[in-house]
Amino acid sequence: MAYLNDGIERESSSAGESTTVQTQDNNLKSLTPFFHPRTIALVGASRGQASIGYRLLESLQKSHFPGSIFPVNPHTTEIAGLRTFSSLREIPSHVDLAIIVVPAGLVLSIIDDCVAKQVPAVILITAGFAETGGAGSSLEGQLRERIRRSGIRLIGPNCFGLMNLAPAVRLNATYTPMVPPVGHVAIASESGGLGLAVVTAAQRLNLGLSSFVSLGNHVDVTVNDLLEYWEQDQHTQVILLYLETIIDPPRFRQIAERVGRCKPIIALKAGRTEAGRSAAGSHTAALATNDKAVDALFVQCGVIQAKTLEEFLSLATGLSNQPLPQGRRVGILTNSGGPGVLCADSCAAEGLLVPNFSQGTQSALASFLSPMAALRNPVDVIGFATEDEHAGAVETMLTSDELDALIIVHVSVRPKDNQPVAAGIVRGVRAARQTGHKQPVYLCWMAEGDLDRSFIVDGEVIPTYKHPEIPARIIRQALTYEAWRKQPAGHIPPYTDVDLVTAKEICTDALADRGPGWLTTQETHSLLRAMKVPLVPGSIATTPEEAVRLAQKIGFPVAVKLASHQIVHKTEMGAVQLNLGDDQAVRDAFNRIRTKLEQAGQLDAMEGVVVQPMLSDGVEVMVGMTRDPLFGPLIAFGLGGIHVEILGDVQCRITPLTDRDATEMIRGIKGYRLLTGYRGHPPADLEALEETLLRMSRLVEEIPEISELDLNPIFALPPGEGCRIVDARIRVMRQT
Amino acid sequence: MAYLNDGIERESSSAGESTTVQTQDNNLKSLTPFFHPRTIALVGASRGQASIGYRLLESLQKSHFPGSIFPVNPHTTEIAGLRTFSSLREIPSHVDLAIIVVPAGLVLSIIDDCVAKQVPAVILITAGFAETGGAGSSLEGQLRERIRRSGIRLIGPNCFGLMNLAPAVRLNATYTPMVPPVGHVAIASESGGLGLAVVTAAQRLNLGLSSFVSLGNHVDVTVNDLLEYWEQDQHTQVILLYLETIIDPPRFRQIAERVGRCKPIIALKAGRTEAGRSAAGSHTAALATNDKAVDALFVQCGVIQAKTLEEFLSLATGLSNQPLPQGRRVGILTNSGGPGVLCADSCAAEGLLVPNFSQGTQSALASFLSPMAALRNPVDVIGFATEDEHAGAVETMLTSDELDALIIVHVSVRPKDNQPVAAGIVRGVRAARQTGHKQPVYLCWMAEGDLDRSFIVDGEVIPTYKHPEIPARIIRQALTYEAWRKQPAGHIPPYTDVDLVTAKEICTDALADRGPGWLTTQETHSLLRAMKVPLVPGSIATTPEEAVRLAQKIGFPVAVKLASHQIVHKTEMGAVQLNLGDDQAVRDAFNRIRTKLEQAGQLDAMEGVVVQPMLSDGVEVMVGMTRDPLFGPLIAFGLGGIHVEILGDVQCRITPLTDRDATEMIRGIKGYRLLTGYRGHPPADLEALEETLLRMSRLVEEIPEISELDLNPIFALPPGEGCRIVDARIRVMRQT
Repeated sequence: MAYLNDGIERESSSAGESTTVQTQDNNLKSLTPFFHPRTIALVGASRGQASIGYRLLESLQKSHFPGSIFPVNPHTTEIAGLRTFSSLREIPSHVDLAIIVVPAGLVLSIIDDCVAKQVPAVILITAGFAETGGAGSSLEGQLRERIRRSGIRLIGPNCFGLMNLAPAVRLNATYTPMVPPVGHVAIASESGGLGLAVVTAAQRLNLGLSSFVSLGNHVDVTVNDLLEYWEQDQHTQVILLYLETIIDPPRFRQIAERVGRCKPIIALKAGRTEAGRSAAGSHTAALATNDKAVDALFVQCGVIQAKTLEEFLSLATGLSNQPLPQGRRVGILTNSGGPGVLCADSCAAEGLLVPNFSQGTQSALASFLSPMAALRNPVDVIGFATEDEHAGAVETMLTSDELDALIIVHVSVRPKDNQPVAAGIVRGVRAARQTGHKQPVYLCWMAEGDLDRSFIVDGEVIPTYKHPEIPARIIRQALTYEAWRKQPAGHIPPYTDVDLVTAKEICTDALADRGPGWLTTQETHSLLRAMKVPLVPGSIATTPEEAVRLAQKIGFPVAVKLASHQIVHKTEMGAVQLNLGDDQAVRDAFNRIRTKLEQAGQLDAMEGVVVQPMLSDGVEVMVGMTRDPLFGPLIAFGLGGIHVEILGDVQCRITPLTDRDATEMIRGIKGYRLLTGYRGHPPADLEALEETLLRMSRLVEEIPEISELDLNPIFALPPGEGCRIVDARIRVMRQT
Repeated sequence: MAYLNDGIERESSSAGESTTVQTQDNNLKSLTPFFHPRTIALVGASRGQASIGYRLLESLQKSHFPGSIFPVNPHTTEIAGLRTFSSLREIPSHVDLAIIVVPAGLVLSIIDDCVAKQVPAVILITAGFAETGGAGSSLEGQLRERIRRSGIRLIGPNCFGLMNLAPAVRLNATYTPMVPPVGHVAIASESGGLGLAVVTAAQRLNLGLSSFVSLGNHVDVTVNDLLEYWEQDQHTQVILLYLETIIDPPRFRQIAERVGRCKPIIALKAGRTEAGRSAAGSHTAALATNDKAVDALFVQCGVIQAKTLEEFLSLATGLSNQPLPQGRRVGILTNSGGPGVLCADSCAAEGLLVPNFSQGTQSALASFLSPMAALRNPVDVIGFATEDEHAGAVETMLTSDELDALIIVHVSVRPKDNQPVAAGIVRGVRAARQTGHKQPVYLCWMAEGDLDRSFIVDGEVIPTYKHPEIPARIIRQALTYEAWRKQPAGHIPPYTDVDLVTAKEICTDALADRGPGWLTTQETHSLLRAMKVPLVPGSIATTPEEAVRLAQKIGFPVAVKLASHQIVHKTEMGAVQLNLGDDQAVRDAFNRIRTKLEQAGQLDAMEGVVVQPMLSDGVEVMVGMTRDPLFGPLIAFGLGGIHVEILGDVQCRITPLTDRDATEMIRGIKGYRLLTGYRGHPPADLEALEETLLRMSRLVEEIPEISELDLNPIFALPPGEGCRIVDARIRVMRQT
């Protein structure tokens, strides 16, 4: 059975490169019977026309699936003209794909039949598993166990089926009879209803599909597997994902980054808020995800993120039907001023340009447009413009070489003009295409009674939208994707100078000695030194006189700060004394700190004080890390203080960070301009900050005991002078 | 002629209260013939069926306008069954409303006919005026002059007409034959095309209109006039405005704030970006507007701002058909998990709550829903839920008293279920309404092939949307509006203690002496003292020894800063010396500053130095003012430094500020939490900051010579301790 896989662990996140190739080949092989079955058994086929068992059979038959269909039903002999079988085992031929629609209580025994019959692929439509909690969850556990042991691949349970629209296959194994148009968009949905809504809307939206999979509770086959399958599928050029969780984020990242280099991946991630997560949990038992981690993941691996269903669908029709724009210059053609203005506003709001046309192009337009027309950009051809005027304007604008994308906005003034205007638009685009002008074209077609008109130019669909603000969002997202795709993949520097053995020992020793908690100041400093990141020189003094000696060695003024792994908010309790100018000031500072701890009854928590030189120049930034149960280490960068805590101006990425990630994090904060020199202050040494981020990524990847890390503040000095970590906290936990 | 107005200046912004009542009454009177004409002359009526002159006549006839229509055309005797007249003057009866569609070149002579015939109201459809520039602008100037002199009211030119759908009137004076449903939404549009798109979409959107006006180039009748008219119009309950400019902002503010207390005003302002303004300028010659000023204006007068056409239409259908929500608790009823999750996400993103239902309500739902249903919130009734299940769930949720709004999300699984599900929804809402439950209900109806279904419960329209994220935005905007409406209007404190005479003299003297430019440090201090705002005590020294004497008087440490009205960026050039601890440090600082100016060849610009005490506590904020040519003074508040300049965390309002404006500005910045106490720092004296804002508003309102003002930084001290202006700059200009 070529289709049967070898039962390897599929969701391993530690897969090396050879394993990657293996899962990839393996997925291609093991998922093929879902998409290219020659024989299908429908277990739970039914004569009741309202039943899913009947409707699935009807869908299979109506889609003209060319293979054999075997309905299984012990209570009848024939359904819809097909002979039925009383059980799977009775079917006289090999079965490539079993579709199961029996009640939940019967599912496990049917799975046993599949094992016995050596069926390689199963779609389990039946609901009543983990999404219902309690007994359903335990049933799902048993199902998962059986599937893992057998090596059968399974889609579902609690799903709505699968479609493969490739002309040689024509498989509709869902319970909707509406078959979408054929095209090259593959869709995977973790919600059946959402999938149904998209699939049934596809005709109206001119969204051509290659295949569709409803994943349900994804007990076995996941989005990650499908991405690997579609990577190899020649019919698929664009991939749409509706997700409620991220399964095995490191593997998703690896696969999506690879696939995304050739085929755009557009994702709508639901459950972005507490309310949404709670809702998602109750319907597919999705694992809660951290919103910031999801955003970071998508940015890191080039996934185009839609924030609403409307944006998801607009991106799908826009990116699957038109080439990607190669620049920011947008031309707008309208027959109505106001909607043209709204369109121009939306372009500017998305960072696009709406440049005036050259005098030459304006003259060319003037030669055939009404004297009332506006010629600069937007080009307003005026309400009653004819077919010829539209054709001429579209062709002139596209062939001007002055734009990277064209948006056409049309308000129908008279219904009878719609046809000629549409014909003019198509003619204009055709003429431009014939002379090799490939800029994307999007249409806002506001013609009541004629809203769903298709615009097709020699097989090329011009996507249409109902509001003039939508195309700008598509263009901006497409440009971001193109920029990501054109850049070389990031690189993870090895940093062979680090002493990971020492770093690890510090953590495990602290855990062994004191259990989970913060490292001491001494431990923290040693660990950071082992990672070769630049600490502000500073030593710990345990008496006032030792502090004075250290200060004399450093040179005045100095800072004196409490050293304690138990007391976290040192500033708030007055345990940070700055700008100390002489011996006596240092002595007083030590004593003041000790007194404060004494008063608070926490003298035991005092490890001493850190004596440091005062830094006066430089910009304060921070680097932080928290470990997410699903995503692993999440590294944050920001300007620190209220910038991170109140204004939320922070960039996050999941580890391992690449050099590209580090560069983008620093440049991605709103306050970045402060790091490039502001009001006479020198710019910051960005390379040093990047290196600090990358070394911390290395650290937390290698030492899973580190659960939290906070370098705050770090002083960024001018270029060439590096940066200095002034304060640091590291927390360790036992691994689970 | 009761309709003829008295020709008063309509756009005067200095109108006092009695004038307000006068323009209000006047507008009601003078605009009445547009909306309630008994006789209409159509000048430029035509037999050519493609012409606007024919189509307008057709619209008038088809709408069953009950009054008399007199077509005017010198070249024919009859059009569409009506006798024509060779000129206006020939019409044997009084004409209430003339609609003019003749070519631009003939318009002025027709206006002369209107004057002769004492026609009180004219709709001028003809284009070719200021929107075409050059000769068109000058023609518009002549038109405006003639209209002003005569007292005729005129809508247009370059417009698309007017509709009044009140049952007794049924007037369609536009050239679209599509008449929208009757309702209580009035629309004014500064773009004909946008207006056309909205009016023709109204049927599909279930948007019932009371009236519609296309304003064109608004040579006479403006949005402001229409607001006053609709304020009194019993058929109008909600007002929609599509704007490309703001005419007479102070008057708009006054009227909109008054009207908005009874009838929500929803505005879509186009030309928000440079690209959009440039596009708007070329099609209706709209005056460029400052985006920040528009946002401020709308916030101040309670206008609900839509940012896209889609939001505009959604708000219109949502607010005109349903009551305003009275709280943030949203219930979601869905038959499909995924769309329910997206809906819950959107609610949370808009700051709404999706609270779990009580055990009692969950039990009530469980008693009739499928065991697979989710009961908490969203309530997921499952794909195949019946009419009864829908009816029961809607009623149970609405009558639970656990929600302030209900969103129903439906994905059609089988087309034949649509009708029963729709019937169930209507039944459920009806049952709830009958027991007095008035929460708003919104519907996301994702049923391909049945998208435009109407949901009407005893005359109440349940608005439907295509995407599950839209209702949350409507609810959030409605709540913001309700909160604005329920608060008492703001108050402008008189501040009788200020010495405006001195303040004014300082400005006019500086202008007379030196011409436009910055006030000197001495002038600035005197002016601010006259306004009774708290300056940091500090005096000007012109020699090092004088500086030392001042420092000794103040007490060390002190700050020494260049005093100069010519040099603006003092910090950048090292002319601000802080933390000076003794006599010698002050002396050195004075000399360093003098040397820097000498080196820069700018010693003449040195007025001396300001010696101030060092402030160590408090939060730094800033207050600024710029004068916009259209909106007048615009006051800004923020945390200063990079918060304003790089992060753009600033709140703006137009003057005069009310106490409510000042309160909202301070609470509106993202960094507000810093002013409420952060990490052990004390909170700030917010009242003192508010007072500073209000006194500066008073200042710039009273003294138009002040063109720019910058109090930066201001140290906000703890509550009860006030604030201190550390640096200030004031610029004066001659008035134009």
